[in-house]
Amino acid sequence: MAASNTFGTLFTLTSFGESHGPAIGGVVDGMPAGVLIDEQFLQAELDRRRPGTSELTTQRSEADRVRILSGVFEGVSTGAPIGFVIDNTSQRSADYENMRHVFRPGHADYTYYNKYGIRDHRGGGRSSARETAVRVAGGAFAKMALKTAGITVEAWASQIGTAVREGQGPLTDEMRRQILEARGQGDTLGGIVSCRIDGCPAGLGDPVYGKLSARLASAMLSINAAHGFDYGMGFAGAARRGSEVVDNWEPCAVDPRGIRAVANNSGGIQGGISNGEPIEFRVAFKPVATLLQDVATVDDNGEATVLHARGRHDPCVVPRAIPVVEAMAAMVVLDAWLLNRTSRIVP
Amino acid sequence: MAASNTFGTLFTLTSFGESHGPAIGGVVDGMPAGVLIDEQFLQAELDRRRPGTSELTTQRSEADRVRILSGVFEGVSTGAPIGFVIDNTSQRSADYENMRHVFRPGHADYTYYNKYGIRDHRGGGRSSARETAVRVAGGAFAKMALKTAGITVEAWASQIGTAVREGQGPLTDEMRRQILEARGQGDTLGGIVSCRIDGCPAGLGDPVYGKLSARLASAMLSINAAHGFDYGMGFAGAARRGSEVVDNWEPCAVDPRGIRAVANNSGGIQGGISNGEPIEFRVAFKPVATLLQDVATVDDNGEATVLHARGRHDPCVVPRAIPVVEAMAAMVVLDAWLLNRTSRIVP
Amino acid sequence: MAASNTFGTLFTLTSFGESHGPAIGGVVDGMPAGVLIDEQFLQAELDRRRPGTSELTTQRSEADRVRILSGVFEGVSTGAPIGFVIDNTSQRSADYENMRHVFRPGHADYTYYNKYGIRDHRGGGRSSARETAVRVAGGAFAKMALKTAGITVEAWASQIGTAVREGQGPLTDEMRRQILEARGQGDTLGGIVSCRIDGCPAGLGDPVYGKLSARLASAMLSINAAHGFDYGMGFAGAARRGSEVVDNWEPCAVDPRGIRAVANNSGGIQGGISNGEPIEFRVAFKPVATLLQDVATVDDNGEATVLHARGRHDPCVVPRAIPVVEAMAAMVVLDAWLLNRTSRIVP
Amino acid sequence: MAASNTFGTLFTLTSFGESHGPAIGGVVDGMPAGVLIDEQFLQAELDRRRPGTSELTTQRSEADRVRILSGVFEGVSTGAPIGFVIDNTSQRSADYENMRHVFRPGHADYTYYNKYGIRDHRGGGRSSARETAVRVAGGAFAKMALKTAGITVEAWASQIGTAVREGQGPLTDEMRRQILEARGQGDTLGGIVSCRIDGCPAGLGDPVYGKLSARLASAMLSINAAHGFDYGMGFAGAARRGSEVVDNWEPCAVDPRGIRAVANNSGGIQGGISNGEPIEFRVAFKPVATLLQDVATVDDNGEATVLHARGRHDPCVVPRAIPVVEAMAAMVVLDAWLLNRTSRIVP
Repeated sequence: MAASNTFGTLFTLTSFGESHGPAIGGVVDGMPAGVLIDEQFLQAELDRRRPGTSELTTQRSEADRVRILSGVFEGVSTGAPIGFVIDNTSQRSADYENMRHVFRPGHADYTYYNKYGIRDHRGGGRSSARETAVRVAGGAFAKMALKTAGITVEAWASQIGTAVREGQGPLTDEMRRQILEARGQGDTLGGIVSCRIDGCPAGLGDPVYGKLSARLASAMLSINAAHGFDYGMGFAGAARRGSEVVDNWEPCAVDPRGIRAVANNSGGIQGGISNGEPIEFRVAFKPVATLLQDVATVDDNGEATVLHARGRHDPCVVPRAIPVVEAMAAMVVLDAWLLNRTSRIVP
Repeated sequence: MAASNTFGTLFTLTSFGESHGPAIGGVVDGMPAGVLIDEQFLQAELDRRRPGTSELTTQRSEADRVRILSGVFEGVSTGAPIGFVIDNTSQRSADYENMRHVFRPGHADYTYYNKYGIRDHRGGGRSSARETAVRVAGGAFAKMALKTAGITVEAWASQIGTAVREGQGPLTDEMRRQILEARGQGDTLGGIVSCRIDGCPAGLGDPVYGKLSARLASAMLSINAAHGFDYGMGFAGAARRGSEVVDNWEPCAVDPRGIRAVANNSGGIQGGISNGEPIEFRVAFKPVATLLQDVATVDDNGEATVLHARGRHDPCVVPRAIPVVEAMAAMVVLDAWLLNRTSRIVP
Repeated sequence: MAASNTFGTLFTLTSFGESHGPAIGGVVDGMPAGVLIDEQFLQAELDRRRPGTSELTTQRSEADRVRILSGVFEGVSTGAPIGFVIDNTSQRSADYENMRHVFRPGHADYTYYNKYGIRDHRGGGRSSARETAVRVAGGAFAKMALKTAGITVEAWASQIGTAVREGQGPLTDEMRRQILEARGQGDTLGGIVSCRIDGCPAGLGDPVYGKLSARLASAMLSINAAHGFDYGMGFAGAARRGSEVVDNWEPCAVDPRGIRAVANNSGGIQGGISNGEPIEFRVAFKPVATLLQDVATVDDNGEATVLHARGRHDPCVVPRAIPVVEAMAAMVVLDAWLLNRTSRIVP
Repeated sequence: MAASNTFGTLFTLTSFGESHGPAIGGVVDGMPAGVLIDEQFLQAELDRRRPGTSELTTQRSEADRVRILSGVFEGVSTGAPIGFVIDNTSQRSADYENMRHVFRPGHADYTYYNKYGIRDHRGGGRSSARETAVRVAGGAFAKMALKTAGITVEAWASQIGTAVREGQGPLTDEMRRQILEARGQGDTLGGIVSCRIDGCPAGLGDPVYGKLSARLASAMLSINAAHGFDYGMGFAGAARRGSEVVDNWEPCAVDPRGIRAVANNSGGIQGGISNGEPIEFRVAFKPVATLLQDVATVDDNGEATVLHARGRHDPCVVPRAIPVVEAMAAMVVLDAWLLNRTSRIVP
């Protein structure tokens, strides 16, 4: 299947919708039957990425009310596809009319135009960050299934601009300060989201091309503005010696596996397959290119022009990317967890 | 299709074989008809990753003679699948007999055992780097097709241990020195491979989940020992301001597109789709865990033991990973190039 | 991709919804950009399969108003996924309350219950014929794209009960008589739908497992109540001699191919690939098992019971299956037409 | 995945090779770990379809020795892909030299040429029946896995020319007589292969587009010369009344399900999912077009010519198609059996 708007193998999310159409939505297929569907949790997850919820994000207010249309009966998944829609309530196409013939630098305008010979310039069409609401919904369903397996996914901002934090937690004061400073200047900031998956049994992921690390990398790089992924020691490992970073095994009475690794430089994945340690990875986000400043560019006649973006935009995508990273990770892990049921003739 | 040993969508490579069986090989499907098949080039690409070719790599000598079994008639691809095999000539299973019941730290032993309940301990089975020979063969076929499109792929070592090089080129003296030093100590080194794709037209890759960046990330993280991927400004972009890194467009008479970007912080990909600039990405490799030193570990009875690896191993995977990175990139780009033929009703 | 609710390879339809939920709908992905979207035609196609339109079909009236939610901008497809929903307006769940614990013979009740351990008994859930409305919508989009290629798809009833008709055309008087007779007796009838695809160029379909005939067979057998498929001489060919049925080639000045087949016993497909002759196939439908009579069966406690179905049902599925057969055929052919763009390095 | 030479979803077979190259072969992926690999059985299955084994089939003798190259360790499947090759020992390309520029009526010559713009005329290339040897090998591996599940697949010839047999069994005298008569006249015969799958639990197959019936239909229509598929009452059901053919359920103490169907007009499949009754289907084969007689046709210049086929050909494909039908059915059922492990959150 080549469909670019479907994600996953056994547990799949198919996504549709532009920010300036009547609605966005998706179809979750391969949801195992018998999962308790928690609609409050689903809505709560969507609210986490919703804009307009703090001074740190765009003030565009989107209700993001999700409606489940199928696949759930008497509070439980039936095994049928779960269709859902989220109506678009805030559409200010006028904000984008001045972009109809202009290629915004650092955006998908030029590339979409070259690919399709046509372009829905309103809010970037499919390249709009609004599409990530569908991912968060898909991830919420995945989390409901993972809950029964005792698997949890948690992401946090580990870097925003030059502000770094060690360990899990909310945005630091310095992170908040840099975001507000950038906003004041009509500028934007990049950052890094870290993610940790706990409770993952050993054996998830496949050898060779279907490595869990490869599936996570693909999932993360599919997020708007993501420019990098690494896990375990990642890029830092390039400068290390093997003797410094080998994760030796030792017997461990309290670990259900009977053994444990003395360190986790492998980030919970060895040979592409989970080893039972926490899975740890990072996703790098670029500073988005939507500046509230004059920007030199070219129109679709090839003429030089100056663009001054209007509208409401995030000075930094990281705060709202956190639930998106969790959602994509949850879908990858559930998919691998289901696939792993078929690895042995006698389970 | 969930097959973990098949890579790609329209142009696919299916791989098989362990380093200690009679042969490894693969099947290339979706190769367009009419491509000139250059068997010398195919063999030359395989020779680039072959061990035993320099003091910097394992002295294990593998002939790596590839035999094409189908899909080629009178020197041209017919559109039929191209089956090929590479016989295994150097099998010293005895080197691995002491590992039958031991989990090597940092390897796939423990994870494969947990996934399959069984294990081919000889040379790591499917997790052996030998599998990458099949990728290089697949990539060589992809390069033959890309040649007609004027697309080239070139990778190089940009970091080995703490030795860094700017710009393309061969291993520096310092890189060679650090590798030989690590070998002398029975230790290993990590590094970074950089890759550049030239001649890529605008429009390759798909929005949302099928972004070219996501497909490249998946391809690269599927390579043994790869722990990270980034493109364009990548992880470095996390600390930057949008105003510093926006790739403004300007008219350009000499560029066939009539425009060009004043900078390439996007690494040739915007919104997941190529923009006609060179595609630039990096792949981080960990120092492999095969140390020719005593290593504390556990056997499959959960008992503590000490492993002293024998055999012939690379002190650093980077030199031999270079053609593998190129091969995976070539397959991704050819796949995207073919998919892009279907993006418009009137091509 | 294992998703059972997604159909196709490059042009895909993902379907969701039960007849007794708030809505059904789907997502069309891989629609090439630049196709004129004719919403009147879309609605007209849906009206063809809508029940309650004649004395020959169930009197259940469904408005079947389709709403497009995305993927279309200024009347043209953008290359983005086309999401659409059809609200359910007529839901008489009460009709089905007596089936909550009963397995209807010849239906999917028992099999769904065994597969999922749970069951949405209202109207058969996903096994409801209502799902075919989504197929017809998907097929309508495919026909819009095929129109630009000059390819047409037409189906008709060639047998209903014992009434047979030669050649294309509407239901004969005898067909209508048998349907009304069966309805009067609370009974049902089987039948055969024939289909013809004109304007298909030579070269569509793939060798081996992706034969055009195999893709059509899969598409047709996926339709509710379909029990058989054949093409060309089909089952009748089993009793023939090769010398009687070989489709000799002869030169033909007026045919754009310069040649033509003197007969079409191959049904337009040779070696799994279209040969430029009209594609001709048949689909057999069983008499549906929903009888308005007492039927002996078993409940989910394994106790014998008698079921007397209420509600409004078709005495024969064939009249409403005609547009569904066309829709599935149109999606298969468009998919093959797009795939065929990648068969040669120089198109 | 669009690869036309890969079959299946979780259990996949990727096939390569032409009858006139050095070898044919394939890769089985998704084989669960822990299956006993019986190489004698594998070879025995191949011998069943091998030509030259009786007066009823072509006298071309092919050794068909299969060699397993990977995926098996100490007699058991490891979960790694199983690569295998079958060398081509009997290549009489000269037999085909006169066909280099001629389109054989009823063959794939013209369609391949139109698809690929190029053609391997020797023995029909990928359209050669020799490819079915790879299917039989893949099916043999599937049968080894199904054995542990107590599922068996058996096919037989139920019609050859006008000779029909009721119930399972070998070729009747009349069937043999008609085949020999056709051979004597350089003519060919069609026929029907029937197949029965026993021991299949209820729940295999998926709703909507992934129906077990749809997957079987696709598998069977992908076999060379297959022109039709039906299951249960099939085409005969078109003329029946629902009241005549409904498969009522009744309690059954001896059946592990506690119930049974009083009849099996559904052919063991309801709503696309197995119901625990035997699965029964039929495959229609055309009389192949390779006549040892003068045949009028056209060459690749569009000029009329006469072809007189030489070489060794089957007068009827049915005897050798029997193991191929079994093989394809076994792969479909194993795939569905594995997929069904993921239908519920609590298995």
